[in-house]
Amino acid sequence: MAGGSSSSAGGAGARGRASSRLDGLFLRRFLRLLAVLFPGWPSPSALMFLTLLGVALLEQLVIYQVGVIPSQYYEVLGNKDFSGFKTLTAVAVTLIIVNSTVRPEAHVSWERKRKLLMAPGMILVIKDSSLPIPWVTTTNCWFLFHFEKMFVLTYLSPSISLPLFQLKSFDQFICNMMYVNWRKSLTEYLHSCYFQGQVYYNLLVLREDIDNPDQRISQDVERFCRQLSSMASKLVISPFTLAYYTYQCFHSTGWLGPVSIFGYFIIGTMINKVLMSPIVSKLVQQEKLEGDFRFKHMQIRVNAEPAAFYRAGRVEHMRTNRRLQSLLKTQRELIGKELWLYIGINTFDYLGSILSYVVIAIPIFSGVYGDLSPIELSALVSKNAFVSIYLIGCFSQLIDLSSTVTDVAGYTHRIGELQETLLSLGRKENGNYSEAKTSWDLDGNHSGEEPVPRDTAFLLERVTLSVPSSGKLLIKDLNLRISQGNSVMIVGNTGTGKTSLLRVLGGLWESTRGSISMLTCFGPRGVVFLPQRPFFTDGSLREQVIYPLKEIYPLSGSADDERIVRFLELAGLTDLLARAGGLDEQVDWNWYDILSPGEMQRLSFARLFYLQPKYAVLDEATSALTEEVEHELYRMCLQLGMTLISVGHRPSLEKFHSWILKLHGEGRWELTRCEKLKRLPSEEGY
Amino acid sequence: MAGGSSSSAGGAGARGRASSRLDGLFLRRFLRLLAVLFPGWPSPSALMFLTLLGVALLEQLVIYQVGVIPSQYYEVLGNKDFSGFKTLTAVAVTLIIVNSTVRPEAHVSWERKRKLLMAPGMILVIKDSSLPIPWVTTTNCWFLFHFEKMFVLTYLSPSISLPLFQLKSFDQFICNMMYVNWRKSLTEYLHSCYFQGQVYYNLLVLREDIDNPDQRISQDVERFCRQLSSMASKLVISPFTLAYYTYQCFHSTGWLGPVSIFGYFIIGTMINKVLMSPIVSKLVQQEKLEGDFRFKHMQIRVNAEPAAFYRAGRVEHMRTNRRLQSLLKTQRELIGKELWLYIGINTFDYLGSILSYVVIAIPIFSGVYGDLSPIELSALVSKNAFVSIYLIGCFSQLIDLSSTVTDVAGYTHRIGELQETLLSLGRKENGNYSEAKTSWDLDGNHSGEEPVPRDTAFLLERVTLSVPSSGKLLIKDLNLRISQGNSVMIVGNTGTGKTSLLRVLGGLWESTRGSISMLTCFGPRGVVFLPQRPFFTDGSLREQVIYPLKEIYPLSGSADDERIVRFLELAGLTDLLARAGGLDEQVDWNWYDILSPGEMQRLSFARLFYLQPKYAVLDEATSALTEEVEHELYRMCLQLGMTLISVGHRPSLEKFHSWILKLHGEGRWELTRCEKLKRLPSEEGY
Repeated sequence: MAGGSSSSAGGAGARGRASSRLDGLFLRRFLRLLAVLFPGWPSPSALMFLTLLGVALLEQLVIYQVGVIPSQYYEVLGNKDFSGFKTLTAVAVTLIIVNSTVRPEAHVSWERKRKLLMAPGMILVIKDSSLPIPWVTTTNCWFLFHFEKMFVLTYLSPSISLPLFQLKSFDQFICNMMYVNWRKSLTEYLHSCYFQGQVYYNLLVLREDIDNPDQRISQDVERFCRQLSSMASKLVISPFTLAYYTYQCFHSTGWLGPVSIFGYFIIGTMINKVLMSPIVSKLVQQEKLEGDFRFKHMQIRVNAEPAAFYRAGRVEHMRTNRRLQSLLKTQRELIGKELWLYIGINTFDYLGSILSYVVIAIPIFSGVYGDLSPIELSALVSKNAFVSIYLIGCFSQLIDLSSTVTDVAGYTHRIGELQETLLSLGRKENGNYSEAKTSWDLDGNHSGEEPVPRDTAFLLERVTLSVPSSGKLLIKDLNLRISQGNSVMIVGNTGTGKTSLLRVLGGLWESTRGSISMLTCFGPRGVVFLPQRPFFTDGSLREQVIYPLKEIYPLSGSADDERIVRFLELAGLTDLLARAGGLDEQVDWNWYDILSPGEMQRLSFARLFYLQPKYAVLDEATSALTEEVEHELYRMCLQLGMTLISVGHRPSLEKFHSWILKLHGEGRWELTRCEKLKRLPSEEGY
Repeated sequence: MAGGSSSSAGGAGARGRASSRLDGLFLRRFLRLLAVLFPGWPSPSALMFLTLLGVALLEQLVIYQVGVIPSQYYEVLGNKDFSGFKTLTAVAVTLIIVNSTVRPEAHVSWERKRKLLMAPGMILVIKDSSLPIPWVTTTNCWFLFHFEKMFVLTYLSPSISLPLFQLKSFDQFICNMMYVNWRKSLTEYLHSCYFQGQVYYNLLVLREDIDNPDQRISQDVERFCRQLSSMASKLVISPFTLAYYTYQCFHSTGWLGPVSIFGYFIIGTMINKVLMSPIVSKLVQQEKLEGDFRFKHMQIRVNAEPAAFYRAGRVEHMRTNRRLQSLLKTQRELIGKELWLYIGINTFDYLGSILSYVVIAIPIFSGVYGDLSPIELSALVSKNAFVSIYLIGCFSQLIDLSSTVTDVAGYTHRIGELQETLLSLGRKENGNYSEAKTSWDLDGNHSGEEPVPRDTAFLLERVTLSVPSSGKLLIKDLNLRISQGNSVMIVGNTGTGKTSLLRVLGGLWESTRGSISMLTCFGPRGVVFLPQRPFFTDGSLREQVIYPLKEIYPLSGSADDERIVRFLELAGLTDLLARAGGLDEQVDWNWYDILSPGEMQRLSFARLFYLQPKYAVLDEATSALTEEVEHELYRMCLQLGMTLISVGHRPSLEKFHSWILKLHGEGRWELTRCEKLKRLPSEEGY
C-alpha cells in the first residue's frame, strides 16, 4: 500500500551519510567493484582510463617545465646568452599554452582575468614597439615586457593555440564516456544478481539489513561512477607528484620547508575536522528533517481522501508546520555553525598565503646561500618559490579531493554491502527447491519428464511453518496433497498464516520443518498465483493482461486480440478497453491510479483467464467485489478447467471448493470435506 | 495504494524543465511572491536584503577604485610626485585587500595563486632590500618591485587584513539566513492556503491541472529561495554597473569598444543558444528516463511479493535492463552533443580573450591619441584596459546569471500557478456548504443552536450525482433522511457510486442537483467517517487511536489510557500494544508497513470506538476481516450507541441496519426496509 513507497522516501531522508570508513573492508569492496568496472583487457573503460592517465602525466611534466622556466631565465639572462634566451622563450610560450589549455582548471574566467590584470605585478599593459615607451635597460624588465608581448602575439595566432584549447573538451568527453561505461557495467552486473531467481524478493521482504536496495542500484551507482570518473586520474597521480615535490622542496629549502608545510596542513586539517564534526551531524539531521518534511507532504498527497473524510486539514496543517519549523530551526543552527567554519577556512587560507612567503624567505634571511652570486640566488629563489607553492597546492588539492574520496568510500560501502548480500542470496538460491521453477515453463516439452503422480500439483508432508522474522508458530505438521479437480479453500482469522501458507506453496518462504514438493511448473501449463495485492506493470492494456508473457511472446499479433477482448468482457471490464483507447495504446497513466480496487481485481482475473493455467492460487482475489461478481468469476475459472486454491473470508465461496483447510493459529489446523460441489475426492489417505 | 507515490516519482521524472517564460505573467507571479517574501517594513528579510545590497554597492565602488589605480600611478610616477605616490600606495593597498576579501569570488584557491605566480608578468619574487639585487632605475619597474613587497608586508600584518578577510563569511551568512527566512514565509503562506478547509483535497483529487503540489511546496520553494538569495543582490546591481562601464568604455574608446563587445556577446549568446537547444531537449529526456529507471526500481521494491508470486524476475530483469539501456543511450548522445558545446564555449572564451586586446589596441594603432605624451598615453591605455575588460566581465557574469534566472523563472511559474489555484479554491471553499463544518466541533456549546430535527444527521432532497471528471450519472433524484437509530446500509456493484455518495455526504463532492444538508457536526458529538483506505499518521500508538484529536488535546494524560487500551482490546489488537512498546513509545516504523490490511481495519475501529460519535460512516471498513470479527465490531458500534451508515458487500451485514439503499448504477436506486433488526423506523414519508 502507500507504505511501501513512504518507507523509501523516509528511508532516503533518514539515511543521511552512510558509513565511509577507509579500512581493509573498503579496500576489498572497492577492488571487487573495480573488477566489475574493468571486466578485462582491452576493455573500452581500461583504454579510456589509460588515455586520461596519459594526459594527466603529460600535464604534470608541463607544469614542472613551466614552473622552472623563470629560474632558467635568470641564468640565461644573467649570462647574457641571447641564443639560449630565444630557444628558452620559444619553449616557454609553447609550454604555457599547453598548460593553460590541457587542464580543466585552466578554463580562466573573465573574473579571474580581470583580477590577473589588477594584480600588483600585472599593471603592465601591451605596448606596440612602434610607440615611444620608456625603454627598460635592466635585463629583467626588458624580458618582462617582451615576454608579455610574445605571449599575446602567440595568442593572436589561432593556428597554434586553438587546437590545444580544445584538448580540455576532449578530456571532459573521455571522463563522461568512462562514467557511462562504468555505470552500464556495474548496473547490469547488479541487475543480473538482483533478478536471479527470487533474490530480489528475499532481499526486499525477508532481509532487513540492506536498506533501500533500489536506491543503491539506481542512485548510488550513478553517483559512485560519476565521482570516480572525475577524480580517478588525479588521485592515481597525486602520490607521485607529492613525493616528487617534497623531495624537490627538501633539496632546496632543507627540512624546514617540507616539514613546515606538512605540519601546517596536518594542524589545519585537524582544526578543520574539529570545526566540521558538529556540522556533519547537523547536516545529517537537516537532511533527515528535509526528508521527513517531504514525506509528510507525500503522505498527505497519497491519503488526501481519507484525510478529508476525517476533516484532518487543521491537524495536518499543525503537524506539517511543526515539521517545517524543526527543519528551519536546524537549518538556522547549521548556518550559524557554518559561519565559524567559513571563518576557519578563510583564516587558514590567509595564513597559508603567508606561509608560502615565509618558506621562501627563511633560507634567504638565515644566510644559507650567502656564497651565491645575485644571479644564482635569483634563480634559486624563483625555483624554490615554485616548488613550495606547488607543494602547498598539492596538499590543498588532496584536501579538496578528500571529500570526494569520502563520498566514493560511502558509495563503495553501500554498493559493496549490496553486492555481498546479493551474492550470498544467489548462492543460497542455487541450492534451493525452487531453483528449477524460477522462470516460466513455456516449452511444454517436459510432458514426458513429469513426476509420477501426474495429477498432483503440491505435496506437503508434515510441514511446520513459522513467521521468519519473529519465529511465531503458524501451522504444525500439515499434510496436504492438492491434485487436479480438488479445489481447496483456506480460511482462518487474520494472522493465522493463510498468506504465509501460499508463500510456502509458491516457494517464497521455506518451511521450518517438513517437505513441500511442487510437482508442476509455473505458467499456463502449471500454476498461476494471484497475489493479495494486484500487480500491474507499466505499459499497454495488452501487456497487463498477458503479463508476464509479453517479453517472451512480444509479437503475439492480432490472433490473440479476440481472446484478450473476450476475457476482458468476461471480467466485466469492457469500458476499460475504451478508456485505454485500445489494447496496444501506450498509456501514460499509472494503472494503480486509474483503476478502483474492484477493477484491479477484475483485471487480475482477466489475466488469469488469459493464462488459463491448470491450477490457480487466489489470495483474497475478490475482496473488493460483490458476491455476484465473485461467483461469476469463480464459475468462469472452473469452466476454464482450473483447480483453485483460494484464500477468502466469505462462506459463500465454499461451494466452489472440495476441501476446506481451516487455520486456527498457533499451529492448529483442520481439513474438512466440503459437500456442496459434486466432485470425486482424491485426497486419499488424509 | 502504491500508485500514489509512484505517480509522484514518475511525475518528477516526466516533469523535466518547467516552463520558464519571462513575460508579463512571470512578472505578476514574481511580484505576488515578493509580497509574501517581504511581508512588511521593517521585516528581517528586508533588512537583510538591504545589508547585502549595501555590501554589493560598496564592492562595486572598491572595484572601480582599484581598477583605476594603475592609471593614477602612471600619472603620479610620470610627474615624480613622491608624496602623491605614498598616499596613492596606502589607498591602493587598503582597497586591494578590501576587494579581495569582501567578494566571494575573491576566495583565491591555491591553484589560482600558483598560476598567478607563473603568469608571465609575475615571475618577480620577493627580495629583501638588504640583499644585493639589480636596482631598477626606471620608475615603472621600481614601483613594481616595491608595490609587490608592500603588498606582502601588509598581508603579513594580520591586524589589518584578517578582519576584512572575514567579511566574506559574513556575506554568505546573511545570504543563508535570508534564504531560511524566505523559505519560512513562503512555505507557511502556502501551507495556510493549502490546508484551508478541504482545499488540499480538491487540489489533489479533483483538480488535475496542477501536477505534484507536494513537490512544489517542499522542493520548488526551497530551490526558489536558495537561488534567489544567492543571485538577488548581483542581479539588482548589474544593470547599473553595465550602464556605467558602457559609458566609460564609450568615453575612452569611442563607439567601437562598446559596440564590438556588445556585438560579440550577442552573436556569442545566439550561437550558444543554437548549440544548447538540442542539449536542453536531450537533458529533459535524460532526466525523464532517469526518473523512469528509478521508478521501475521503486515499483519492483513496492511490489516484490506479487512479482515473486508471478515469477516475474526474468521479465522484470529484461524490462529494467531495457530502461537502463535507453537511459544510457540518451546519456551517450548527450555527452556527444556536449562535446560540441564545450568546443563552442572554449572557442568563444578564446576569441574573447583576443577581443580584449584588440579593443585596447585599435585606438592606439589608429593614432587617435597621437597628440598625447607617453605618460598620458600609458595612463589612458591602462584605464581603457580596465574598463573594457570589466565590461566583458559584466557580460560574462550576466550570461552566467541567466541560467539561474531561468531556473528562478521556472520555479516562479510553478509556485505562482499553485498559489493562484490555491487562492481560487480557497475562495470557492468560503462560499461552500461545508464551510462551517471543516474543522471538528469539540466545544459542545452548540447544543442550543442545533437545527430543528434534532435527531437527524443528513437530509438529502432530490439529489442527483455524477462523476465530476467524466459526468457519468450515478444516482438520480435520491431522497433520504438519516436519523438517529436508523442505520442505513448502501450496497451495489463496483462503480455504481457507493463511495461517491459518501463523498457527497462528507462534503467532499458537490451534488449535480438537489440539496444535501448535514445537520450535525464532525467529531465525537456528531459524525465520523471511516474511509475505505485506512489512514494513519506518523507517531505513537496513542496518536493513531485518538487521531485527529491529538493536536487539540495534546495532554490527554493517563486518565485516557485505560479507555484506549480497552478499545484496542475490543478491536482485537492487544498484541499491537506490546509490539509498539506501549501507547506513547515513539516508533520509527511506518504504520502502513507494520500492519496487515486486517490490522489496519481493526485499528480504524479502535479509533472509532474511542471517538464514539453519534453517527459512523463506514466505507467497506471490514473487507479484510472475517465475518465473525466483522460482527463483533459492528455489535460494539451499536452498543456504543452509534447509528451506522455503511457500505459493504456481505449480506450478513444487513442485520445491523434498518434500511438498505441499493444502487443499480445509471441513476437507479432502491430503498428497502430491513426487517432483521427490531427498531422503530423513522424515515417517514420516504
